[in-house]
Amino acid sequence: MIRVPSEPVGRLGGAWRACVGTGRLELALRRDYQESLALLQREIGFRHIRGHGLLSDGMGVHRPYEWQGARQVRHAFTYVDQVVDAYLELGIRPFVELGFMPEELASGKQTVFWWGGHVTPPSSYQEWGDLVRATVAHLVDRYGLEEVRTWPIEVWNEPDLSIFWQDADQEAYHRLYEASALAVTDVDASLQVGGPALSPGADDGWLTRFAAFVEDRGLPVDFVSRHAYTSGPAQEVPFGTHQTLAPAGRLLEQFAAPRHELKGTGLAGLPVHITEFNSSYRPDNPVHDTAFHAAYLAPVVAGGGELVDSFSYWTFSDVFEEVGIPTALFHGGFGLLTHRQVKKPTYHLYAFMARMGDEVLARGDDHLVTRHPDGRISVLAWAAAGAGGHTVRLSLPVPDGDEVFVRRTSVDEERGNAYTAWRRMGSPQSPGLRLLDMLREAAEPVRSHHRLPVRDAEAVVEIALELNEVTLVEVEPVVEEAPPWWDERRLLGGGAERSPGDGNSR
Amino acid sequence: MIRVPSEPVGRLGGAWRACVGTGRLELALRRDYQESLALLQREIGFRHIRGHGLLSDGMGVHRPYEWQGARQVRHAFTYVDQVVDAYLELGIRPFVELGFMPEELASGKQTVFWWGGHVTPPSSYQEWGDLVRATVAHLVDRYGLEEVRTWPIEVWNEPDLSIFWQDADQEAYHRLYEASALAVTDVDASLQVGGPALSPGADDGWLTRFAAFVEDRGLPVDFVSRHAYTSGPAQEVPFGTHQTLAPAGRLLEQFAAPRHELKGTGLAGLPVHITEFNSSYRPDNPVHDTAFHAAYLAPVVAGGGELVDSFSYWTFSDVFEEVGIPTALFHGGFGLLTHRQVKKPTYHLYAFMARMGDEVLARGDDHLVTRHPDGRISVLAWAAAGAGGHTVRLSLPVPDGDEVFVRRTSVDEERGNAYTAWRRMGSPQSPGLRLLDMLREAAEPVRSHHRLPVRDAEAVVEIALELNEVTLVEVEPVVEEAPPWWDERRLLGGGAERSPGDGNSR
Amino acid sequence: MIRVPSEPVGRLGGAWRACVGTGRLELALRRDYQESLALLQREIGFRHIRGHGLLSDGMGVHRPYEWQGARQVRHAFTYVDQVVDAYLELGIRPFVELGFMPEELASGKQTVFWWGGHVTPPSSYQEWGDLVRATVAHLVDRYGLEEVRTWPIEVWNEPDLSIFWQDADQEAYHRLYEASALAVTDVDASLQVGGPALSPGADDGWLTRFAAFVEDRGLPVDFVSRHAYTSGPAQEVPFGTHQTLAPAGRLLEQFAAPRHELKGTGLAGLPVHITEFNSSYRPDNPVHDTAFHAAYLAPVVAGGGELVDSFSYWTFSDVFEEVGIPTALFHGGFGLLTHRQVKKPTYHLYAFMARMGDEVLARGDDHLVTRHPDGRISVLAWAAAGAGGHTVRLSLPVPDGDEVFVRRTSVDEERGNAYTAWRRMGSPQSPGLRLLDMLREAAEPVRSHHRLPVRDAEAVVEIALELNEVTLVEVEPVVEEAPPWWDERRLLGGGAERSPGDGNSR
Amino acid sequence: MIRVPSEPVGRLGGAWRACVGTGRLELALRRDYQESLALLQREIGFRHIRGHGLLSDGMGVHRPYEWQGARQVRHAFTYVDQVVDAYLELGIRPFVELGFMPEELASGKQTVFWWGGHVTPPSSYQEWGDLVRATVAHLVDRYGLEEVRTWPIEVWNEPDLSIFWQDADQEAYHRLYEASALAVTDVDASLQVGGPALSPGADDGWLTRFAAFVEDRGLPVDFVSRHAYTSGPAQEVPFGTHQTLAPAGRLLEQFAAPRHELKGTGLAGLPVHITEFNSSYRPDNPVHDTAFHAAYLAPVVAGGGELVDSFSYWTFSDVFEEVGIPTALFHGGFGLLTHRQVKKPTYHLYAFMARMGDEVLARGDDHLVTRHPDGRISVLAWAAAGAGGHTVRLSLPVPDGDEVFVRRTSVDEERGNAYTAWRRMGSPQSPGLRLLDMLREAAEPVRSHHRLPVRDAEAVVEIALELNEVTLVEVEPVVEEAPPWWDERRLLGGGAERSPGDGNSR
Repeated sequence: MIRVPSEPVGRLGGAWRACVGTGRLELALRRDYQESLALLQREIGFRHIRGHGLLSDGMGVHRPYEWQGARQVRHAFTYVDQVVDAYLELGIRPFVELGFMPEELASGKQTVFWWGGHVTPPSSYQEWGDLVRATVAHLVDRYGLEEVRTWPIEVWNEPDLSIFWQDADQEAYHRLYEASALAVTDVDASLQVGGPALSPGADDGWLTRFAAFVEDRGLPVDFVSRHAYTSGPAQEVPFGTHQTLAPAGRLLEQFAAPRHELKGTGLAGLPVHITEFNSSYRPDNPVHDTAFHAAYLAPVVAGGGELVDSFSYWTFSDVFEEVGIPTALFHGGFGLLTHRQVKKPTYHLYAFMARMGDEVLARGDDHLVTRHPDGRISVLAWAAAGAGGHTVRLSLPVPDGDEVFVRRTSVDEERGNAYTAWRRMGSPQSPGLRLLDMLREAAEPVRSHHRLPVRDAEAVVEIALELNEVTLVEVEPVVEEAPPWWDERRLLGGGAERSPGDGNSR
Repeated sequence: MIRVPSEPVGRLGGAWRACVGTGRLELALRRDYQESLALLQREIGFRHIRGHGLLSDGMGVHRPYEWQGARQVRHAFTYVDQVVDAYLELGIRPFVELGFMPEELASGKQTVFWWGGHVTPPSSYQEWGDLVRATVAHLVDRYGLEEVRTWPIEVWNEPDLSIFWQDADQEAYHRLYEASALAVTDVDASLQVGGPALSPGADDGWLTRFAAFVEDRGLPVDFVSRHAYTSGPAQEVPFGTHQTLAPAGRLLEQFAAPRHELKGTGLAGLPVHITEFNSSYRPDNPVHDTAFHAAYLAPVVAGGGELVDSFSYWTFSDVFEEVGIPTALFHGGFGLLTHRQVKKPTYHLYAFMARMGDEVLARGDDHLVTRHPDGRISVLAWAAAGAGGHTVRLSLPVPDGDEVFVRRTSVDEERGNAYTAWRRMGSPQSPGLRLLDMLREAAEPVRSHHRLPVRDAEAVVEIALELNEVTLVEVEPVVEEAPPWWDERRLLGGGAERSPGDGNSR
Repeated sequence: MIRVPSEPVGRLGGAWRACVGTGRLELALRRDYQESLALLQREIGFRHIRGHGLLSDGMGVHRPYEWQGARQVRHAFTYVDQVVDAYLELGIRPFVELGFMPEELASGKQTVFWWGGHVTPPSSYQEWGDLVRATVAHLVDRYGLEEVRTWPIEVWNEPDLSIFWQDADQEAYHRLYEASALAVTDVDASLQVGGPALSPGADDGWLTRFAAFVEDRGLPVDFVSRHAYTSGPAQEVPFGTHQTLAPAGRLLEQFAAPRHELKGTGLAGLPVHITEFNSSYRPDNPVHDTAFHAAYLAPVVAGGGELVDSFSYWTFSDVFEEVGIPTALFHGGFGLLTHRQVKKPTYHLYAFMARMGDEVLARGDDHLVTRHPDGRISVLAWAAAGAGGHTVRLSLPVPDGDEVFVRRTSVDEERGNAYTAWRRMGSPQSPGLRLLDMLREAAEPVRSHHRLPVRDAEAVVEIALELNEVTLVEVEPVVEEAPPWWDERRLLGGGAERSPGDGNSR
Repeated sequence: MIRVPSEPVGRLGGAWRACVGTGRLELALRRDYQESLALLQREIGFRHIRGHGLLSDGMGVHRPYEWQGARQVRHAFTYVDQVVDAYLELGIRPFVELGFMPEELASGKQTVFWWGGHVTPPSSYQEWGDLVRATVAHLVDRYGLEEVRTWPIEVWNEPDLSIFWQDADQEAYHRLYEASALAVTDVDASLQVGGPALSPGADDGWLTRFAAFVEDRGLPVDFVSRHAYTSGPAQEVPFGTHQTLAPAGRLLEQFAAPRHELKGTGLAGLPVHITEFNSSYRPDNPVHDTAFHAAYLAPVVAGGGELVDSFSYWTFSDVFEEVGIPTALFHGGFGLLTHRQVKKPTYHLYAFMARMGDEVLARGDDHLVTRHPDGRISVLAWAAAGAGGHTVRLSLPVPDGDEVFVRRTSVDEERGNAYTAWRRMGSPQSPGLRLLDMLREAAEPVRSHHRLPVRDAEAVVEIALELNEVTLVEVEPVVEEAPPWWDERRLLGGGAERSPGDGNSR
C-alpha cells in the first residue's frame, strides 16, 4: 500500500503533449487525416505537429520556370496554406521541419520512402536559402509574427543516416544548417530555429561537433533535437515486419542523452525536443496496434516530461505512406488512430493523460497520481508490458466528505481493443461501414464506477491489473443531493424490501 | 437448450416502432427535444410521433379577433410549421391528435396538466370544425396530400376520463368526433381519421357504443385507438411518485382488447393503434429510469407487434411538463432519454430492437431470435424484471463456415445504466457538463465479443443473464482474411512463445 | 468633400455590442432561438444578453412543497442551466435581470404579457432573498466566481410603470432592491448589482430618489440602468400596431439622461447601461422590419457609445411572445432576425458595425470612418431615415500604394430587404421551405467592388445613397501580384483586342 | 417577342447532370475536394462522377509481393473504399474508368501528366484481367450488385492519342478492351461495360473499327463514349496557356458525331456518353475562370441533352494536378469551383440548370423556358459569349392570378464573378481567410425581384442582358395573403402619405 501525500511533489507539465508526429504534410490535405486530427485534438489536445515533406514536390512550393530566357523560381503556397490553415483551425501549431529537397534543387537523384523524398544537398545553397526565407516570410505574413514565433523550426531530419542525407555527410549538414538558420533569422531574429534531429543511432560525437560548429560560426540555435526508438532489426514478411524491442526504459535514456552530451558546450542550456519517438521505427510493425504497446509506453509518456521539453509520438495517424499505401485496416502503422478513426490502445494512453491534473502527488513504476485544481484526483496505472495480474494499492488524500465516487476506465487485451475485435472478425482487409462501426465501438475503453468510504481523510483504492492493462482511476468526493424522503426500497411502491436499481450497493 | 430452426416462423414487422409519444407539441420547438429526437431517429428510427396540444394555445393556431365590429378567427401555423418541418427533417411523421381546446373556443374553464390544456367541449362545433378543417387543409397544402395521407388523425385523448374530457361525456365526444371526422374528410376523403383514444380504465361498453354511433351516422373511421398502462395507485412524495406494477403481460392483454371488443361490429377489421403505453402513467415515477423497466418491457416490445398495428411508447424524452418542470436530471420521467440526451436502459431495449432482422426464427419468454437478409442472426434476451441469474441456451443455424463472430451488448443494474451512476455520484439535481459527459458514458451499454465454433451447421450460444439484464447477441460467420504468413507469436520478433494481443484466444 | 484625417479622433469601443435583448429566458430553450443566436454571434458578436423571466414559473426555479407538515422551497435549475450553458457555448454572457415574481411567491394576482409574468411584490421578502441568493450561488458554483463576476445583475424591470410593478410603487421597489442586492452580495461581495431599469417615461426624480435611498442605506450598487424608446401612442389593427416616431436623436438624449440626473449624487461615477432601446416598444409594429428602421437607428448605433457603457437593442430575434404567438413571418417583431433566420435591414446595420475598426478617424451626421490595426479603412454611411438621394464624399488617408480596392455592401428599400420581397410574394403568413430560402437570399445585402486611384496619399470615395440606405464601404490598398507576363487581352488566344473578363476596367 | 406556348414541347431530362469529371481519384481523399463536391451536390446534384487513376499507383490497388519464392499479387482497396464510400455518402456514383496501368504491370516506362500515370499496355493481360475482376468483384461485394449495376464501366481513356496509350495502338486497345470487358462480365453479366473514350481528334474510322471488332468477337458493350473540346493550339506563358476557341456549336457537333458514325453498325442503338467536354482541354487556361465561359457553354449545357445520354463537364473542381500543383487561386483550372470553394460563373450556369423544371415550353438561341409540376416557370437566358446588350422578350403562359412574382439571378462580368474581384484585389496568389470570404461573397450571383401583371393569362418578361450574362428568371403567381386592414401608408402612424418600404411599388 502506497500512502499518497496531500502535498504535490511536482508538476506534470505539458511536455507529453507538446508535439505529435504526422505523415508527410501533403497528407494533411486529406479528409480522413483531418477528421482524425479533429478527434485527437478534442480528446487529447496536442500543441504542435511535426512531419516531413514541407518542401518536397508534393507540396508544390519550389517552382522554377523560364521567363525571357532566364531561370526564375516562383514560390507557391497553395497547399502549405491549406495545411497550416487546417492545423490552426484544429487548434494545433506546426513544428516546422525544413525538408526534404525539391527535385529541381537537388544535387542528386537519391530519394527516401515510397513517395520519393529527395535527400541530396541543394545544387545551390543560395536558392535553398531563398526558398527557406520565402517560406518563412510567407508564414509570418499570413499568420503574424507573434504566432509564428511559437513554431520551432528544425533543419532537416536525421542527417546522421545516409538514407536521409546523402552519405550522412555532417559537414554538408552544417552548411545546410547555416544557410537555413540564417534565412530564418533574416525574416525575424526572434524566430526559433534548431536541429539537428539526430537518429537514435547517431554517434556520441555528432552533437558536440554540431555545437562546436554553431558556436564557432556564431549561428542562431534555439533548441536541440533528436529521435528515440527501441526496436531491433526488421524481420520482414509481406506487408509487415516483426522486431524485438528493448525495454521501454531505453527510450527514457535516449531522451536524457542530449543534455548529458551537451554539458559544457554552448548549447548546454537549450530546450531539448525529442522530435520523434516510438517503440519500432517501422510503419508496418503490428506491435503498434496492440494493448502491449500502450502498456509498454505508459511509463515513458507518464515520465518523459521529467527529462525533456517535448517528446513527440511518431505518428498520430495511420494515414501514412512511407512504405506504401496500407493494404489492410490494421497493418502495424504508427498511428494512434487507424484510417477512419478506429482508436488503438495507445490512443487511450494519451487520452488518459489528458484527464490528469497538473499537480503530481505520487509517481511509481506502475502509477502516476495527480490532482486537479478542484481537488479531484486522477490516477494512471499500468501493467508491465506483456504482463498482468498485479494490484496497485493506493491510499489517497481526501480532506472532505465521507465517500468518494470512483470511476475507472480501462484498456487491455480485451477491453478498448479494436485490434483484438478485428482479429476475431477474421482480419478483414477493408471492413465495410457496419464493421467499422463495430470496431469503433470495440475500441472504446470499458468504464465502471463505485463508491468508496473515506476514513481519516483517506480513501483506499485497489487497482487489479489485467494483462497489458492501462487504466485511469478518477476519484471525487460525493456531495449527496438525494432528498431526505428518497427511499429506493419504495421504487415499486413497496416498503422495506430490497429494490432493483439500488445503484449505491456494491 | 433451444434448437432454433433455420426456417422463419414469422416476420418481426414494424409495429414496435410505428409510433412514439411526446410531450405537448410546443416542446418540439426546443433544441434539447430536437437533439434527443435526432439521436433517437439515428439509432432507433420511429415512423410516427404523437403528442397532445396541437390546438392548445401554446401553439397559437386559433386566433380570434375583432374586425369591423365582428368576431373573426385567424388560423396561424407559425409554430405548427416549425414543429412539422422539424419532424420531417428528422425522418418522423406526425400521428396527429386533435386536441385540446383553444381557450377562446372552450365552453368552460376546466384544464388538465401544469400547462393548462382546456378539456371542455367547444362553445361552437362550427368553429371547431373550421379549426380542424383549416389545420388539415394547411398541412395538405404545405406537405402534399400524398404525405399527409400517411398521417393518422386521432380525435381527442382519453375522453372516457373526466380529467381529459369534461364529465367524461361520451355523447359529447361522439358529437366532437363527428364534427372532427367530417372536417378532416372535407379536406380529402382519403385522409385517415380515427379514435377514440381510450384510457386503460374505459368500461367495456365504450368502444362498442362508439362503433354503433359511427356506423349509425355513417361517419368515416379508419382506425381504432386506446392506451395501456399497468401501474397501481400513486403513493406521492415531493416531486415523485411510487406505484405498484401489475405483471407486464397485462399490457399485452390491453393491446389485445380492442379486437375482442369490436368483434362483430362494423369496426372489426380496422387497424388498432395503442397510441400510448407504459408501465406507470406518472411522469415522476422513478421506475422509468431503471434497468428493471427495460427488463419489464422487453417481452412487451418484442411481442406487441403480434397483437396490434402500433404501440407507442409514452414518451421518447423527459422534455415533458405535465406535472411541472422537472427539478432533477433523473426524476422518473417517461423519457427514453433524459434532458440532454442521457440514455436510459429502456432506450437500449429499443435500440436493440432496431438491430434485429425481419425474419423471426424463434420466440420465447426470455428471448427473440431473428435473421437479417445477409444471414446474420440477432438475439434479444432478457431477465425477468426484478430477477436475474438464469441462462438462455440457443443452438443457432449457421449453414456456412467453421466459426462465428459473436458480439454481445448489455444493459443491467450496472452496465448501460446512467441512473445507477447518477445515484452513486450523489444524485446531483443539475449536473455540470463534466458530470453529464460521465453520465452519457455510463449510459452506454457494455459490449464484448468472442468466437464460437460451428458444428453440424449449428453454433451454441449460452447467454447468462444478470439482474434486470437486457442483452443483444449478434452472430455472423467468420470469413478469415488473415494472410498465411501471419503468426501472432512473432509479434515481438519472437517465435513459438505465447504473444500478447492474440485476440482469437478465449 | 470631407477630408478624413490620418490621426484617430477617438476609439469606437464596444458599447454598441455590449448587450442585446431577448424574449423571456424560457424561449432560449428553443432551437430556432439558438440558431438565430448562433448566427448573430458569428456575424456580430454581442457580449451580454438580457431578458425577462429568469424567476418566472416557466423557468421552474421556485418550487414550494410540503414535507412533514411544513412548507419548504426547492430551488431547481434544470432550465436555467440549459439556457446559460447554451449562452456560454454561443459566446455570450447573461446580463441577469432578477424578475418576475414566481406565482407562489407573489402577493397578488396581477400579471403582465400574454405569457403572464407576475408583477406584485413578494409575499415574503425573506423567501425572495433566499431565491435570489440560491440562484446566484448556484451560478457561481456552476460557472465560477471569475465568470459570474462579469455578469451585471439588475433588479427588476421598469418598476416605474404600474404594468410591470404593482402601482409603480417606488418604496416597494426600494425594499425589493435592498433584499435583492444584499442577497447577491451575500454570495460574493465582488458581484455587480444594479438597477433600477427605468422606463423612458420615468419622472425626473425617480433616479435621484433611488440614489438617495441606496446611499442612505449603504447598499451595494455597481451600475445604473434605464430604457429608451421613441414611439408615440399605439394605433392598433388586428395583430399589429402603427405608431409615430420621434426623431432618432431623442434616443441619444435618453441615453445621456442618467448621467445628467445623477450628477452630484453618490451614483455619479457609475457605469450607465441602457438595458433596452428601440424605436417602438411594440413587438407588432412593422417599422421594425424595414430599411427605414436601419437608417433611423444608424446614427444611434454608430454614436451611442459616446454616451453610455452599453445600449442593448431590444431584441435580437422575433422569437418573442409578449403579445402572443406571431401569426405571420413578418409581423413587426423587435427581432434583428425573424423566426427561422431571415435577416432584417437592422441586422445588417449591426453586422456592418462589426466590420468597423476601433480607431475612429471621422464622425458625421451621415457617416462614421474607422481604421483597423492593419490599415484598412471601413466607412459606415447612411441616408436620413425616410430620405435618400444625397452623396457622402470622403477623402481617405492612404499612406502607401497607387490604388485601393473598394468594396461596398448595402441595404435599402430594394437591397438586403426580405420584407420587400415578402410583400411582393404576397405576404405569405407561413412561407414554405422554398420561399424561406428565397427570403434568406433576398435578405443578403448587395455587394459591389471597384478600384480607385490614390493621389497624394488620398483616395476619394463618393457614396451616393438610395432611399433608406445603410452602406458599408471597405477600402484597402492593392498589392499587385499579377505576374509580368499576364495580359488579359490574350485571354482567348488573341492579342491587342479588348477581352472579356477584364475585371480591372470600370 | 416570343410567345411561349402553354403545352410542353419536350422534356429537359437529366443528361446535363448525368455525369461530371474529376481530377485523378486519389484527390478524392482530400477534404477540399470533398467539401467542394458536397457543395456541388447540394446545389446542383450530379448523378455520376468520372476520373482517371483508379488503378494507378496512388490508389494502391495492385500490390505484387514475393511469398515462398513466387510472385503474388495482393489487391488492396483501402483508398478505393474511402473514395467510393465518400461518393455515395455525397449522393454521387462512380462512372468507372479502368486505368491507368499500375507501374509494376506496365510493359514500358511511358507516363502521362505531372503525377505520372502509366500508359503502356499490361505486361500480362492475364494479370490485368485479374486486377479488373478483383476490383469489380470487390465493389459488388461491398456495395451490392443492384448498386454497381448502375455504374458504367469504361475501358481506358483516349486510346487514340499516343500520350494516353503507347503509340495510340488501336489493336492493343482492342485487346485491352476484350480482357477488361470479359473480366467485368465475369463478375456479373448484368454490369455495364463500354468504351472507347475517344479524343475529339480521333479519325473517323476509329469507332467503326471498334464496332467491327466487338461485333466480330461477340464482346459485351453497353455504351459508346467519346470526348469533346473546342480549343486551338496552346500559346504558353509561365503557369498558363492561351488558346483560341471554336464556336460553341462545335461542341454540339462533336456530341452528335458518334450516333452518325455508328449508324448501320451493331452498336447503333447504344447509349452515347460524352465522358469529357469543355472549351479548352488545358487546366491552366484562364478562360475557365470567366463569365465569358459561362455564356459560351450556356447553349451547350441547355441543349446537349437532345443529342446524347450524358455529357460530363471536365471537371467539377480545381483540385487537379495534371500540369502540376496550381500556383495561384485562379490559374485557369477546369473547376466549377476553385480550391476552397469559390464559385466560378460556369458553376452558376449549372446551378441555374438545377432550378429548371422538366417540361420544356420553349427553346431558342438565347433562352430555354421550362415549367415545374406546380406551375412555376423557370427561364434560362444568356448573352452570346463575348457579347451583350440584347434583350430577350417572352410572353409566358400564366393560367391563374392577376400578378406574378419574378425573381432574377444573374452572373456576368461584374456580378457573380469572383475572378473579376480577384483581379481587382491584385490577383493574390494565395489569399488569406478574409479575402477568401470576400471572394466567396463576390462569387454569389446578384438577385432582384419584382411583380408583373398578368393579362389574358400571359405575363410579359423582358430580359436585358449584359456582356457575358447568364441569367435565371423564375416566375410564379402571387397568392395575396396580406389582410384587408393592411395599409403600408400607415407604417409610421400616418395616413395617406407615401411610406417607406412599400415593396410592391416598382
